[in-house]
Amino acid sequence: AIHAQGVIDISAFGAKPGSGADATPAVRAALDACRKTKAAKLVFSEGQYDFWPTHASEKYLFVSNNDEGLKRIVFDLSGFNGLEIDGRGARFVFHRGVNPFLLDHSRNITIRNLSIDWKRTFHSEAKIVAVGKDTADLSITDAFPFKLENGLLVFTGEDKEVVPFQNVLEFDPVKRETAYMARDYWTGQNLPATALGPGQVRVRISKFEGTPGNTLVFGAAYRNFPAFTVTDSENFKLLSVSIYHCGAMGVIAQRSRDIDLDHVRVTPAPGSGRVVSITADATHFVNCSGRIVMTNCLFENQKDDATNIHGIYAQITAKLPDGELEAKLVHPQQRGFDFLVAGMKVELVHGPSMITYSEAVVQTVDRRNSEYTRFRLTTPLPAELKVGDAVAAAGPYPDVVIRNCTIRGNRARGLLLGSRGKILIEDNTFHTAGAAILLEGDARYWFEQAGVRDLVIRRNRFEDCNYGVWGKAVIEVAAGIDPKERAHNGYNRNIVVEENLFRQFDTNPIVSAYSVDGLKVRKNRLEKSTAYPARNPGSKPFEITDSVHVEIEDQ
Amino acid sequence: AIHAQGVIDISAFGAKPGSGADATPAVRAALDACRKTKAAKLVFSEGQYDFWPTHASEKYLFVSNNDEGLKRIVFDLSGFNGLEIDGRGARFVFHRGVNPFLLDHSRNITIRNLSIDWKRTFHSEAKIVAVGKDTADLSITDAFPFKLENGLLVFTGEDKEVVPFQNVLEFDPVKRETAYMARDYWTGQNLPATALGPGQVRVRISKFEGTPGNTLVFGAAYRNFPAFTVTDSENFKLLSVSIYHCGAMGVIAQRSRDIDLDHVRVTPAPGSGRVVSITADATHFVNCSGRIVMTNCLFENQKDDATNIHGIYAQITAKLPDGELEAKLVHPQQRGFDFLVAGMKVELVHGPSMITYSEAVVQTVDRRNSEYTRFRLTTPLPAELKVGDAVAAAGPYPDVVIRNCTIRGNRARGLLLGSRGKILIEDNTFHTAGAAILLEGDARYWFEQAGVRDLVIRRNRFEDCNYGVWGKAVIEVAAGIDPKERAHNGYNRNIVVEENLFRQFDTNPIVSAYSVDGLKVRKNRLEKSTAYPARNPGSKPFEITDSVHVEIEDQ
Ligand SMILES: [Ca+2]
Repeated sequence: AIHAQGVIDISAFGAKPGSGADATPAVRAALDACRKTKAAKLVFSEGQYDFWPTHASEKYLFVSNNDEGLKRIVFDLSGFNGLEIDGRGARFVFHRGVNPFLLDHSRNITIRNLSIDWKRTFHSEAKIVAVGKDTADLSITDAFPFKLENGLLVFTGEDKEVVPFQNVLEFDPVKRETAYMARDYWTGQNLPATALGPGQVRVRISKFEGTPGNTLVFGAAYRNFPAFTVTDSENFKLLSVSIYHCGAMGVIAQRSRDIDLDHVRVTPAPGSGRVVSITADATHFVNCSGRIVMTNCLFENQKDDATNIHGIYAQITAKLPDGELEAKLVHPQQRGFDFLVAGMKVELVHGPSMITYSEAVVQTVDRRNSEYTRFRLTTPLPAELKVGDAVAAAGPYPDVVIRNCTIRGNRARGLLLGSRGKILIEDNTFHTAGAAILLEGDARYWFEQAGVRDLVIRRNRFEDCNYGVWGKAVIEVAAGIDPKERAHNGYNRNIVVEENLFRQFDTNPIVSAYSVDGLKVRKNRLEKSTAYPARNPGSKPFEITDSVHVEIEDQ
Repeated sequence: AIHAQGVIDISAFGAKPGSGADATPAVRAALDACRKTKAAKLVFSEGQYDFWPTHASEKYLFVSNNDEGLKRIVFDLSGFNGLEIDGRGARFVFHRGVNPFLLDHSRNITIRNLSIDWKRTFHSEAKIVAVGKDTADLSITDAFPFKLENGLLVFTGEDKEVVPFQNVLEFDPVKRETAYMARDYWTGQNLPATALGPGQVRVRISKFEGTPGNTLVFGAAYRNFPAFTVTDSENFKLLSVSIYHCGAMGVIAQRSRDIDLDHVRVTPAPGSGRVVSITADATHFVNCSGRIVMTNCLFENQKDDATNIHGIYAQITAKLPDGELEAKLVHPQQRGFDFLVAGMKVELVHGPSMITYSEAVVQTVDRRNSEYTRFRLTTPLPAELKVGDAVAAAGPYPDVVIRNCTIRGNRARGLLLGSRGKILIEDNTFHTAGAAILLEGDARYWFEQAGVRDLVIRRNRFEDCNYGVWGKAVIEVAAGIDPKERAHNGYNRNIVVEENLFRQFDTNPIVSAYSVDGLKVRKNRLEKSTAYPARNPGSKPFEITDSVHVEIEDQ
């Protein structure tokens, strides 16, 4: 039924909470009705709705930093302009290989008041019972079904399908975070294992170190199922949504503008016994613009960073006749990231230094395949342009506000910040195994364009960060600049670190940086903690090299 | 350069035979030039041209009976009308994951005088050195690189990528055919193995039987790389082309009409030492029409049948409101086979019997995803229609001529014939491990629409067929009709078997059939052979049941 003011209730299409039936066909029918009637709102009711891929829409998607493929999508919001989806407390439980939400050339979309989970996770967890030479004895509950086959440990899913992993990482189930100084073991998908008893296996991992009682997490092999995929869209609000699980990133946005996350919680499903929430970054933004705002969010226990905001460098692989250039998207998860368009402004950089030596306007674009694009500029090629250089969008860059968020207990780092807009990181609480804030970017491996121009880090609490292996400082500037090019580079600029609290169990640096032009560190408080063993004797709180305009008031 | 009469020479775009360089960019440029200038012909020269996927075109393809995916295509002839490609003796060598030729909505295409091979095959071969209890000791040449990893045998390719297999099958390298009564072992991709010495491994295969000296063939795990993919096209001529290898079927044509193969040879690359040519069917035709003609061809040593000509049954999975039906493409390799179109005539059949109980015209089609399509008919639904029934195209069906071809030494069967047009099989030579001619079709597992209406099998030589496990008779009618439905079924009709020579080492049936209406067997010659051990003592030369209008003049 279509209520007054264009509100559609999913129950009109046969989906009832708690029924256990596949609600996907009802969602498709409801969205068709929204399109036809231009309804402004689609509502659900409190309770559980289940979704399978069987009758879902299908679309081939290239999703930056995730895996491409022909995706089954439950809420396909492609092309929608003006729609609110209000879960009203609904619990969405997904089954098998589906993408819950897709925004594709969508505008003015709000999604609120719901949670996202999967019946069977894309990762698996086991309790470490004992550790031997190159072996670990594990106890596995039936939340993570498995079999032993061909001398290998194989995790299985709802329909006995294989649930592939590619690495293992130790978590501390009491502290609810990665174990102190735990590192990834990149096992690949074939892990030799033998049976010890019901639910008990011995796996063979070269040089494995771990602590009995801790949890060994088998990381998902692929990134196929983000919760929210947002591409070429604008004005997206995600409000009061819990992402308990998904098989890739929580929110991945590319080539989109104006995104607002408020009270978004990435956290393990309550009562599930899991230590891990989702299998990749909580949030990620590539070539976005306008304003990215994240307030009152919780990002914990996911298998990668809390956010990464950056652009894409494509590599110049050939100079063709008549001034035509060939560019390649180097990283496999960048394939199909078609960002070159006629009329746009681009920057040209040398790979090792990432110094912008020229800006130009694109005249024509000839996409060859998902890796290679040919293009021409409106002006003659700069004389210094050579194969191996990189090209990227020269703006627009997003302004970013991250405020009052809690970031903790996840694998790797907190906030990776690589926007050249105005960035404000304020009133957040960090407890990260790696760097809490990392400024990266490189044009030689990940090909991520970064380099801040105006970054304020203010009134945050950094509590016992760097208890793991992913970073050496709380705030780290580690752009992928060749050491020979770091002096006078200024890749990152105008950084203010003020009025923060740093609670440190170690003498690891508070700020480590190089190639910075403009760094002010002032009015911060330092507290000593004994929460973890110290491991960096002799480090200095500030390790700044190859930088200019540096003012450090704190000691 | 563009010659007189619109002939383009590939050398004008920088590709030289024997250079070892990637000729793919030159092919793309040459085809662009052909489009622009409406050139009628593209020529190559004698010698070797190499092709990689790096700069190839890309397209998502659903290819019936093969694997779908985002394909890299070297010769993308999509949309071409009127083009001849003359290799003039060229040897095309492909590398890694490419599709050599794609016809997609193409018309009037001729391809001639070239050969197709791969540097590294998609299958692997090993010599059986010894056989133990559940083990086989193998010797592997460096034509098929491999490694032992995690206690598994892993074959590798040109760039050390994994070359996955899924089964093993024994071949006789002296006779150059599958070994007598050899069967597939479905190992899956993970095969436990240990090292015995350089190039020597011991693999563990439950209940393995084989003969030292024979060749064990590791079959390709996927069907991603057919040599010629022909979809929605008409008037295609393939003349004097050798397909030495590819990673799927040699020629797969779907929804196309008027296809002519003359002097097409599917055979192992000369001098390569391989026993296997290609990794799936030599040819395959799905929902085709017009005339399919194959003359003077050689189909040997491929890993599946020589041909299979059939339609697709989709399963009715739901009756929706307002007379709408939902149909599902059941077999995973049928996904995306969109054959239902508004205005077409369809037949409705019951699954177990495949009896056509109704014909109707499609009014509207709503494709839901690559598996499910909803549709309506122009007339009310028949009262007997129920979920589980199947729907298929009710014509047009192709007329088929297969003449003067040699079919031998491959895995499985010779010609699978399921067209309801006029079929003439004349002057061919068969030496097949399974049935030489098989009439199948079923609406319960493979969902292949078949059932001949006019089939003449005349003046062929059937030499020592059925030396393997894939079929019990030389000419076999084994449609997937439930035994309870076989009487009065007449799924296959009007079959004439005359003036053939049957050389038999066994007393296996010459013709076994059921549910046939109209079978004439006359003027055939029978010769006794001792080429293989007999295994069917007491079989009768003709085993015909549940059939009418049967006249067998020979004894
Ligand atoms: Ca087959």
